[in-house]
Amino acid sequence: MKLAESVLSGNRLALSRLITQVENNTPEGLEALGSLFANTGRAHLIGVTGAPGTGKSSLVNRLARHYRQVQAGRKDTSVAIIAVDPSSPFSGGALLGDRIRMRDLSGDPNVFIRSMASRGSLGGLARSTSGVVQALDAAGYDIILIETVGAGQAEVDIARLAHTTLVVEAPGLGDDIQAIKAGILEIADILVINKADRPGVENTERALRSMLDLSYPVRRSFRGGNLEKVKAKDESIWQVPIQRTVATEGTGIQELSELISRHKAYLVETNEWERRDQERLESELENLIRLTLMRRFRSTVEDDRYREIVSRLISRSISPHQAVAELLGGLNRGNGDHPV
Amino acid sequence: MKLAESVLSGNRLALSRLITQVENNTPEGLEALGSLFANTGRAHLIGVTGAPGTGKSSLVNRLARHYRQVQAGRKDTSVAIIAVDPSSPFSGGALLGDRIRMRDLSGDPNVFIRSMASRGSLGGLARSTSGVVQALDAAGYDIILIETVGAGQAEVDIARLAHTTLVVEAPGLGDDIQAIKAGILEIADILVINKADRPGVENTERALRSMLDLSYPVRRSFRGGNLEKVKAKDESIWQVPIQRTVATEGTGIQELSELISRHKAYLVETNEWERRDQERLESELENLIRLTLMRRFRSTVEDDRYREIVSRLISRSISPHQAVAELLGGLNRGNGDHPV
Repeated sequence: MKLAESVLSGNRLALSRLITQVENNTPEGLEALGSLFANTGRAHLIGVTGAPGTGKSSLVNRLARHYRQVQAGRKDTSVAIIAVDPSSPFSGGALLGDRIRMRDLSGDPNVFIRSMASRGSLGGLARSTSGVVQALDAAGYDIILIETVGAGQAEVDIARLAHTTLVVEAPGLGDDIQAIKAGILEIADILVINKADRPGVENTERALRSMLDLSYPVRRSFRGGNLEKVKAKDESIWQVPIQRTVATEGTGIQELSELISRHKAYLVETNEWERRDQERLESELENLIRLTLMRRFRSTVEDDRYREIVSRLISRSISPHQAVAELLGGLNRGNGDHPV
Repeated sequence: MKLAESVLSGNRLALSRLITQVENNTPEGLEALGSLFANTGRAHLIGVTGAPGTGKSSLVNRLARHYRQVQAGRKDTSVAIIAVDPSSPFSGGALLGDRIRMRDLSGDPNVFIRSMASRGSLGGLARSTSGVVQALDAAGYDIILIETVGAGQAEVDIARLAHTTLVVEAPGLGDDIQAIKAGILEIADILVINKADRPGVENTERALRSMLDLSYPVRRSFRGGNLEKVKAKDESIWQVPIQRTVATEGTGIQELSELISRHKAYLVETNEWERRDQERLESELENLIRLTLMRRFRSTVEDDRYREIVSRLISRSISPHQAVAELLGGLNRGNGDHPV
C-alpha cells in the first residue's frame, strides 16, 4: 500500500521501484498494481514501431519534447517513454545510443524514461510492458510513448496495448523491405516517413499509399484477433494518413502531433477508445487466467508422474492427446471436447 | 481408424483428407493423428524461411527436385512441401505464384505439396502445422520442407518445429534489411544467399558473416525458449555455414543438400536430433494442456458471471488479479502464488 500511495503522490523513486517490482513479477509489485488499477485508463498510449534505421528513437525524442514545449504555456502535459527491446543480441547497441540521445529530456521532472529488455520469452515482455504502462498511467502521465525495437509479434502485441500506433518508415529502402514490412503496416494508425529529406521519399510515399489502398478491406483485422473485413473506404473508418518528418530537425513534428490528437478524437467519438480499452483488459484477464490455471496444474501434478508421461510421449507409446487425457482425466472424444 | 490405416498404406487422397481434418481440428482428425503418432519421428523436417523476394519458393522447389533426382538411382526419397502463409493480406499473390511454379513437381507420386493459410490466430497456425507435419511424417515422407512466408514469431515457431532451419537472404538489400532480419538469423542452422548472381553478393556475405560472428555467444538462444549462452566457437557447436545459390538455375543446390545432410549427421551424433524432438513434443504437450484447461474453465464458468466480472474489471472496480481471484478462487498472496 505504501508503495502505491507514494506513486500516486508523484514520487518518481517509488515509481521506478514499482516498475522494477512489476518487471520482476513480485507479489509486492502485483499488490501495488492492483491497488493502483482504479487510477488507470486516462493516459493516451502511443505505440511507435518500425525497422531499425528509420529513426524511431529520434522521433520519439522529438515528440516528447514537442509535447513538453507546446503545452508548457497552457496545461502541463507529462510524458513517459518506454523503450522496449525484444532481446535481439543485435539491438543492444542501438538502444544504448537511443538512451544517450534521450539525455536532454531526462532533466525534465515531467518526463519519465524507461528501457525494458526481454528476459527470455516475448510473451513475458508483452505482459510486463502492460504492467509498466499501468504503473505510468496510474502515476498520472498524460502521454505514454511505447517504442519497440525489432519486428514481428512484439509489434503486434504492443499495438494491441496502444491507442494510437505510429509505424515509421524511411526512404531508400528497396522493394523487398516494403514487402517484409507489409505485416507491420496492418497495425498502423498513422504512417510516418521519417528522414523525409532523403532522396526517394516520393517513391516511398507512393509505395506506402498503394499498399494502404490494397490492404484497406482487411487492414483493421489485427485489432480483434480475428480477420474482420470492413467496408472499404467506409466514412466511419479511420483513413490512415501518411506524415513526412525529419526528426533530427523537428520538421513535421507539429503536424504529426496534430494527427495524433485527431486520432484520439476519432477514437473517443466512435467509442473505439472504450472498445480498445475493454479489449485490452479482457485479453489481459484471459492471459492471467491461463497462467493461473497452468500454475495450479503444475502444483497438482507430481514431477515424477509428469516426467513418466512425457517419457512415454517421447517414446511414442502415447500420443500428445493421450498424454493430456492421462494428466487431466479422460477427454470425452466425439462430443466436441477437443481443442478449438 | 479407417482413415489412419489408409494413410499408412500410402493413400494420397486419405492423407489429403486427414490434413484437412487436422486443419479443421475435428475429433476424427485428432483420433487418426493419435493412432498414427507411433509412426512419427522419422522424417527430416527442414524449415525454409526468409524475407519475400529472396526466392525461397524457387529454392524449395529446386531442393525437392534435387532430392527426387539424385536419390532416384539408389533409395527413393519422398518429399513433402508445406507452404505456410501467416495470413498477411499481401502475400496471397506470391503464394499463388509459388504454387504455379511448383506444378512441375506435382505430377510426381512421391512428392506431396500443401499450402496452409492462417485462419485467425498465429498460434493456431503453428498448432495445425505441427499436426500436418505429424500426418506427413506418419505417411512416410522422408523429407518435409516447411516454407514460411512472412516474418517474426511465425518463423521462430516453425524453426522450433524443424530439425534444420535454412534462412534465405539475397544480395541488393540495404543495411536496413540486414538489421531487421537480425532476429531471424538467430534461428538459422544454414544461411543461404540466393540470387547469388546478382551484384552485391560479396557485401551480403560479408555482412552476414560479421553478424554471425557477433551473435555467436547467444545465437542458439531460441532453441530452449530461454537465453542460454554457449561458449563461442565451441567445437561441439554447429558453425552456421553460408551457401550461395541461384535457385532458378540450380546453382549451389547440390552443395546445399550436402550441408543439410551434414547438419542432420551433426544432430544425430550430438543427440541434438533427439533433444529437439523431445523439446518439440514437450512444448506441444504443454500447449495442449493449456488449451484443455482453458476450455474446461470456460465450460465451468457461467457466461453471465464472466460478463459481470469483466464489466467490473472494465469499470476498474476490480483489478485483473482480483478478477482472476473471483473467477478461480482466492489467490494466496505472498506465498509465491503469482504469475511467473
